Amino acid sequence: MENFRFYAPTYFCFGKNGEQNIGELVTRFGGHKVLLHYGGGSIKRNGVYGRVTASLQAAGIPYLELDGVQPNPRSGLVYKGIELCRREGIDFILAVGGGSAIDSAKAIAAGVPYSGDFWDYYATGKPIDEALPIGTVLTIAAAGSEGSPDSVITQENGMFKRGATGEGLRPKFSILNPEATLTLGLYQTACGITDIMAHICERYFTNTRDVEITDRLCEAVLKTMIEESPKVMRNPGDYEARANIMWAGMVAHNNITGVGRAQDWNSHRIEHELSAMYDVAHGAGLSVIMPAWMKHVMQHDVTRFAQFAVRVWGCDMNFAHPELTAAEGVARFRAFLTSIGMPATFAELGAKAEDIPALTEHLFSAEKEPLPGFMELTREDVSAIYRLAL
Amino acid sequence: MENFRFYAPTYFCFGKNGEQNIGELVTRFGGHKVLLHYGGGSIKRNGVYGRVTASLQAAGIPYLELDGVQPNPRSGLVYKGIELCRREGIDFILAVGGGSAIDSAKAIAAGVPYSGDFWDYYATGKPIDEALPIGTVLTIAAAGSEGSPDSVITQENGMFKRGATGEGLRPKFSILNPEATLTLGLYQTACGITDIMAHICERYFTNTRDVEITDRLCEAVLKTMIEESPKVMRNPGDYEARANIMWAGMVAHNNITGVGRAQDWNSHRIEHELSAMYDVAHGAGLSVIMPAWMKHVMQHDVTRFAQFAVRVWGCDMNFAHPELTAAEGVARFRAFLTSIGMPATFAELGAKAEDIPALTEHLFSAEKEPLPGFMELTREDVSAIYRLAL
Repeated sequence: MENFRFYAPTYFCFGKNGEQNIGELVTRFGGHKVLLHYGGGSIKRNGVYGRVTASLQAAGIPYLELDGVQPNPRSGLVYKGIELCRREGIDFILAVGGGSAIDSAKAIAAGVPYSGDFWDYYATGKPIDEALPIGTVLTIAAAGSEGSPDSVITQENGMFKRGATGEGLRPKFSILNPEATLTLGLYQTACGITDIMAHICERYFTNTRDVEITDRLCEAVLKTMIEESPKVMRNPGDYEARANIMWAGMVAHNNITGVGRAQDWNSHRIEHELSAMYDVAHGAGLSVIMPAWMKHVMQHDVTRFAQFAVRVWGCDMNFAHPELTAAEGVARFRAFLTSIGMPATFAELGAKAEDIPALTEHLFSAEKEPLPGFMELTREDVSAIYRLAL
Repeated sequence: MENFRFYAPTYFCFGKNGEQNIGELVTRFGGHKVLLHYGGGSIKRNGVYGRVTASLQAAGIPYLELDGVQPNPRSGLVYKGIELCRREGIDFILAVGGGSAIDSAKAIAAGVPYSGDFWDYYATGKPIDEALPIGTVLTIAAAGSEGSPDSVITQENGMFKRGATGEGLRPKFSILNPEATLTLGLYQTACGITDIMAHICERYFTNTRDVEITDRLCEAVLKTMIEESPKVMRNPGDYEARANIMWAGMVAHNNITGVGRAQDWNSHRIEHELSAMYDVAHGAGLSVIMPAWMKHVMQHDVTRFAQFAVRVWGCDMNFAHPELTAAEGVARFRAFLTSIGMPATFAELGAKAEDIPALTEHLFSAEKEPLPGFMELTREDVSAIYRLAL
């Protein structure tokens, strides 16, 4: 096990009617004037917007609104938010929505006290220690951004999708009310499920030995997703299944499942190029890329893939031919994603084989070759993974 | 799943050489003058004391020492510590040791700013919101107190062993260096293993339905303990196994494995009477009581015990006779505890059958009948559990 630090000081309020505590929590964490940051009309249709604003009003907390966050959130709105916060003396940002609204709020929070261009953090990977405090009201179980120190933004100038991280970005509080997810469409729900499972896989496939506790926690989250996801697909109004998935999404990404080990974020990197070029949903892109990545890297450590197959997917171990067990695990993961309606091929995403060289080049225009990870990836490897996803 | 709040803002520094960061961390969390609180000579023999004091000295942080914490820590030393902190203007308590040193430090931390008798919190269960900040340097994987808001103290006036809890008691930071546990004796190691597993079991056996994610996380910790514990018993110097157990001990008790569900702490309550009357090691007492409690309550929910047997202990499910599977799980738990050298009977603890009425009466002198939990327990039930442990 590697040495590590783990610090996850977000206050979680989970369950029905959680929004009524927003006023109390904003005040507890020092907010006096709030920017309410969200996407479009869905939070107005499902009642979340009304409950959030009622709680702020009841607590006498003034707020301004900035809506218009898009999936794969863009730099343009971040610049606008920074300017607005500075002009209006806002000292707390409340994101209402999924990962996009939260990541956009984090970028604004980082940008307000920073004298340079907020994009510096995303371009250089410099950790973000200082930011305005933020809170979140989660409406989509997916990104895990409600409990993580991470943010991903697409720079419109060049369409680079890049991540930044830092202690300053951990939400002070997050309100997770599974009721807010009951009306979410099945496709978006499935995209979220895929993202959650990818967050675990990128931690699970490691070269670090002897991290049984973290392995087991990873497997716990994956098995929960395998158990609960079909329930939601059959009955989208199943509160209990939605609740399990929502909390699993947080556990998957606050890094309790990732400590003590090297991690591998190449599937996310490779997928980000697809989202950036075609504006596909992140989860859908991952559904296409992740199994392709697995097929490509499996030979690097057949035993670990066999463990994944046996412990997570319930495969019988083929002791004579472990590589068959390993392949069976990946096949079951692929079949699971298909069963929840997720795409398997470039064609289903509207992506094109002839763009593979451009996707690869765009990735390496901002990343050094080879990409570090479970298996180091050259340009050739990345192209091969895209081709496996055709 | 029940509504819940989860807030675990302890900063963990895990791995080799962690003690060298103490100065930095005390300063980060606002300490200017420290009370170093510990038990006896073991931290001097294993080098931890030297590394801790060197780090404080290097950071120029003045400190006083209060040693003498006993297993099942006593109220007398707590009163002494409160008086010392007030007199000397101490603003940060650093506990070095296992759960006893940490729980004693928490009690002192709660008592310093409180105008009444610190025991009020333990006698009434009133939550402790305000306390001096504390940090911990863990040397025994067991109690989980390094990441929990809980403290258990024995009041010498009457020998009542009682717990208190509150947000104010969460350590600001905890340093977990598995090297500090390499020289721990096998018996004490096994007591810690038992305590960790008990912390999970008391969360696992619940009447709350549909908390798959928390169930799976509980099972992850138990399976880790089953995998790693024999390694340490065979080779006490196995750093990797010690590291897995140490982190599992934190995960078992910071409540990430307990959210969203009713919990059952009756095994702990019933054991506390044994520790208080005979001063036995808490883990040894649990080893005797926990399987007895399981046998007594199994009929209340055979399915849940069957799940425990199948998922944790790898039993085959007997679909025709689930109660046999359930019993097999408890038998394997019992055998596991025996395999790591833990006692199974009153006699092995030096406890006596004729004391059962007194143990039961003493418990109910401070608790209402019936005890709430997975299965409500009357005086009769508690006596029956003690008898099953004979």
